[in-house]
Amino acid sequence: MKKYFCGVDGGATKTLCVVADENGYVLGVGEAGPSSMSLVGLKGVEKAVKNAVNSSIRSAGLPSRDVDVLFLAIAGAGSECRREAVRRSVEEANIADVVFVDSDAIAALTAATLGKPGIVAISGTGSIVLGVNGRGEVHRACGWGYLVDDEGSAFYIGREALRRSLMALDGRGPPTVLGELISRHFGAESLSQVIDLISLGEVGVVEIAGLAPLVLEAYKLGDGVAVDIVHQACRELALATLAVARRIGLEGEVLVGVCGGVFEGSEIFVKLFSLKLRELMPSAKVVKPLVKPVIGALLLAYRSVGRELSEELVNRVLDSAANYSKLVVAREV
Amino acid sequence: MKKYFCGVDGGATKTLCVVADENGYVLGVGEAGPSSMSLVGLKGVEKAVKNAVNSSIRSAGLPSRDVDVLFLAIAGAGSECRREAVRRSVEEANIADVVFVDSDAIAALTAATLGKPGIVAISGTGSIVLGVNGRGEVHRACGWGYLVDDEGSAFYIGREALRRSLMALDGRGPPTVLGELISRHFGAESLSQVIDLISLGEVGVVEIAGLAPLVLEAYKLGDGVAVDIVHQACRELALATLAVARRIGLEGEVLVGVCGGVFEGSEIFVKLFSLKLRELMPSAKVVKPLVKPVIGALLLAYRSVGRELSEELVNRVLDSAANYSKLVVAREV
Repeated sequence: MKKYFCGVDGGATKTLCVVADENGYVLGVGEAGPSSMSLVGLKGVEKAVKNAVNSSIRSAGLPSRDVDVLFLAIAGAGSECRREAVRRSVEEANIADVVFVDSDAIAALTAATLGKPGIVAISGTGSIVLGVNGRGEVHRACGWGYLVDDEGSAFYIGREALRRSLMALDGRGPPTVLGELISRHFGAESLSQVIDLISLGEVGVVEIAGLAPLVLEAYKLGDGVAVDIVHQACRELALATLAVARRIGLEGEVLVGVCGGVFEGSEIFVKLFSLKLRELMPSAKVVKPLVKPVIGALLLAYRSVGRELSEELVNRVLDSAANYSKLVVAREV
Repeated sequence: MKKYFCGVDGGATKTLCVVADENGYVLGVGEAGPSSMSLVGLKGVEKAVKNAVNSSIRSAGLPSRDVDVLFLAIAGAGSECRREAVRRSVEEANIADVVFVDSDAIAALTAATLGKPGIVAISGTGSIVLGVNGRGEVHRACGWGYLVDDEGSAFYIGREALRRSLMALDGRGPPTVLGELISRHFGAESLSQVIDLISLGEVGVVEIAGLAPLVLEAYKLGDGVAVDIVHQACRELALATLAVARRIGLEGEVLVGVCGGVFEGSEIFVKLFSLKLRELMPSAKVVKPLVKPVIGALLLAYRSVGRELSEELVNRVLDSAANYSKLVVAREV
C-alpha cells in the first residue's frame, strides 16, 4: 500500500496543504482559512488543518482516507507546550497516522535551504531570522512579537512611520511626507485622528503593518525619514542574520533565503537587505526560495520519519511542485 | 448660597476627587475605582466619577447635593469627540451643574505650574510632555500610546529591557543581567518562557511597564544595558521637553514639573532627566510639583468658569490642601 505525506503551512491569512506520495511526487494542493494559534485558538487550528488536508486530498483525486504522515508548520506553535497541544488536538481528530508540529518559520527555512545548512530571513507582519547548520542545529533571532521586538517587519516599518510622523508633528524630528500619506491611507483628516483610531482599537497591529508599502513608496520619492526607516529595517534584519550565522557556526558561502510579504512585495527591499548583509557578511548569498514554505513542511514530513532529504527526493518534489502555481516562487537575487 | 467646586483626576488605577468652596478652601477628598476611558468605557467613567464625587462630599461633611462646577481630568479623554462624550454622559447623571472635561495630562500640567506658563513631563505607564505659555496655548509631545510611541515611559523602559535581553540571548547585543532579573520577576525559568507568557496574553502592557523599577535597580548595579536604557529614556523626555518649549515659545527660566510613577519612584531618574535637560535647555528649572494632579483639576474648575487663578486663590488651595496627605507631593529638585 502506498504511503501519503502531507505538509501544512498555517498562518494568519490562510492554511495551505500539499499532499505527495512516498517518492516525493506532489499530487495535490488544498487550502483553508487561517490557523495562526493566537488568532483562531486550538479548535480553530484543528478545523483549518482538517479542511486544508481534505481539500488537498480531493485536489489529488485520492479516496478520502487518513494521511500517513502529517507535518504541521503553524504560526504561533513556537514553544514545546504549544506544539504538544496542537499535536494532541490534531491527532484526536484522526486526520493522519503520525502528526508532527513546529512553527511556520521552520517550514520557510526548509523551503529556502531545501534541507541544507543556511538561513531564512522572514519579514511579514512580524519578522524572524532562522538558521540551521550541518548538524541540524537551529538558531533564531528577532521576531519576539510586536509588543517587544519585531525588528525589520512590516509592523516595525509601519510603527516607525507613525512614530516619526508624530515626532515631526510635535517638533521632535525632521519633516516627512509620511504623516500626510498615513492620514490619507486611513481616510483621516489628520495624524491625531489616526491616533484616535488606534486608541479606539480600529487601527491595530495588522493595519499598522499595512503601512509598510506606503513607506516603500515614500522611499522611492526620496523622503528622508522613509529612507532612514527602510535602511534601518534592512540593517536590523542583516544584524540578526549575522548573529544567527555566528551562533550556529555557518562557514563558506552561506545561503540566505528571504521570504514574507515585505520581501515579496518590494524588489528594493530585497536589494537593500542584500547590500547591508554583504557589508556585514561577505560570504552571504541572498536568494528568493524556489518554493513556498508549505513545500518546506512537506520535506520536513519526510525527514520527521527518518527519510533522508536526498537530491533525488528533493528534485522530485521541486519538479512536481512546478505544476502548481500556488507552490512556486520565482528565483531572483 | 455657597458654591462648590470639584476637581477629578481619573486614571488607570483610581479616580481621585477634591471638593472646595468658592474661595479655594479645600473641604474634602474622595476616591473611587479606575476611570481610564480605554479601560472602563464611558459608563465606567460615569460610575467612577459619581462615586469619587460622592465620597469627597461625604469626606467634607456636606449634605448630599449637586456640585456646582466639576472639572474632570480623565485618562484617554484627549480628543474633542471623547471629551464631548464624557461630558454628556456625566451631565446626564446629574452630578453637577456644569461639567468640563479634558485629559488627565492637563491636570498634571496645571498642578505643576499652578496656572503659570511652564511644562510638565509625565512618565508613568505611558508618557507625555505638555506645556502652556502665557497666552494659554498648550502643546504636547511624546506619549502617543504604547503601540506607537511612549518614549521615556515605564512601558518604554520595560519593553527596552525585554528587547535588549532578547538581543543578548540571540546574539545581536551585549550581555546584560536584565534577562535573568526579568525571568525571576515573572517566576519564569527562562526569557523564552516570558515570551510565552506575552504570547498567551498573561504578560501585557501594564506588566511590561512594571519592569521599570527593576531596570533602575540594574542601573544602580552598573549593568551597561540598563544604564543605556535609562539614559535613553531621560534623553527622549528631555528632547520632547525642548520641542514643547520651542513650539510655544517659552522664554527665560522655564519651570518643568516632573510627575508620574517613574519620576516619583526614582530620585536617580529625576536627577538624570534634569542633567540631560539642562544640557539641551540651560534655562530649565526641574521641580517636583507641590500637589497632586487632582489639585490641577480643581484649579481648572475655577478657571473654566472665568475665575482668575490669582495668587490669593492658589495659595488658599495650597494651604488647605496641605491638610490632606493624598493631595501633597514633597518638593525636591
